Amino acid sequence: MNLVLLNENDFTSTDRVTLTDRRFHHIKNVHKVSLGDTLRVGLLDGFLGEAVVEAISEHEVLLRVNLTEPPVPALPATLILALPRPKMLKRILETVAAMGVKEIYLINSYRVDKSYWSTPWLKPEKVDELFRLGLEQSGDTRLPKLHLRKRFKPFVEDELPAIAADTRALIAHPYNASACPAATDEPTTLAIGPEGGFIAYEVEKLEAIGFTAFHLGRRILRVETAIPATLSRLFPAY
Amino acid sequence: MNLVLLNENDFTSTDRVTLTDRRFHHIKNVHKVSLGDTLRVGLLDGFLGEAVVEAISEHEVLLRVNLTEPPVPALPATLILALPRPKMLKRILETVAAMGVKEIYLINSYRVDKSYWSTPWLKPEKVDELFRLGLEQSGDTRLPKLHLRKRFKPFVEDELPAIAADTRALIAHPYNASACPAATDEPTTLAIGPEGGFIAYEVEKLEAIGFTAFHLGRRILRVETAIPATLSRLFPAY
Repeated sequence: MNLVLLNENDFTSTDRVTLTDRRFHHIKNVHKVSLGDTLRVGLLDGFLGEAVVEAISEHEVLLRVNLTEPPVPALPATLILALPRPKMLKRILETVAAMGVKEIYLINSYRVDKSYWSTPWLKPEKVDELFRLGLEQSGDTRLPKLHLRKRFKPFVEDELPAIAADTRALIAHPYNASACPAATDEPTTLAIGPEGGFIAYEVEKLEAIGFTAFHLGRRILRVETAIPATLSRLFPAY
Repeated sequence: MNLVLLNENDFTSTDRVTLTDRRFHHIKNVHKVSLGDTLRVGLLDGFLGEAVVEAISEHEVLLRVNLTEPPVPALPATLILALPRPKMLKRILETVAAMGVKEIYLINSYRVDKSYWSTPWLKPEKVDELFRLGLEQSGDTRLPKLHLRKRFKPFVEDELPAIAADTRALIAHPYNASACPAATDEPTTLAIGPEGGFIAYEVEKLEAIGFTAFHLGRRILRVETAIPATLSRLFPAY
């Protein structure tokens, strides 16, 4: 936790917060703070700054908060991701939140096992928890939005063209693809398939609405590795 | 498994192999091959090519192998990594093997918990298994070499200068650092700290022998995410 993420309702006055939950336990047991220590804090969807420990007990910590810095710039990327298996999904949601992606569509694909859609990790409260862990790790404050789309064709035909409009539309695809495009700040819609990749029909459907396939090199990476590898290469300035 | 990794002793004649182990089960149950199907194969530390399924039973698969392509070029990077906690170590060893790193030093650091050194995942047979999984994922054939260095100071003072000689020596460090250097093919020695980072003393010791600290952007990434993000950005041509 490189940032303590505060909610509006943690505040007891303009510049004082009291924490009693997971964040309190982390501050007490991992950071092991003493009175007067300083912590990096940020208001959810808001500014960043510092907090001074004013009191700490067995049950709560009181912080005096000073928020002075605007939020970190968001990655100009919308991620379209074939739903990964639950264990991987969990880590991926945390990672993409940490890396600054703010719009994530989890979609169906031929190689997505139907059972994956019933994982508890897709429940809004679980997703919220994973996103917050990601933000606390990287020092960001703005929560991503997650959208679930259980039908590939209607999503790609009816909704995706508007999402990808006026953006660079890319498919990370290790087969029959061009090299990874150059780094830019250009708004980008990035589609990443399941383990084993999108099937030819799916790639064709995406290409039909303007997506271009690219590869990351001669090696085929797991989805979990391909995501940070791709985001880092496309957006070095973030 | 995008590549079936073969050992010299799998061969029953010049171009025939019989598999009965984990690879056989994967080929049978995941790839669900039939007679005449083609699989991508590679000889450990050797060439890549294709294999045709000549026979498959409840107990074994017989392949006719044709190896025609040289191994994928190795990443020109030596990784110096503070020993991660076991669960993360496991995934990281697989990932770095998949990404083409061939020399890995796991080192001690102030923030490495001593107990991490006793994880079973550091046993040679476990490491070998993880490396093979990584190679099978990415389609590479050459096994990385893993070196364990339990004492930071003697390693950095006595051994690391020779390892880093004539290479670009970098520390991925999110604090007080410059931006990530440009992509090149230059041989690179890349040091990555533990969760929480190298302490100031350690960064100074590394800088004293010519290492330079860089950051990946304004966000602080987990080690597991920082590794693919860094390798992908430094070496886009691999």
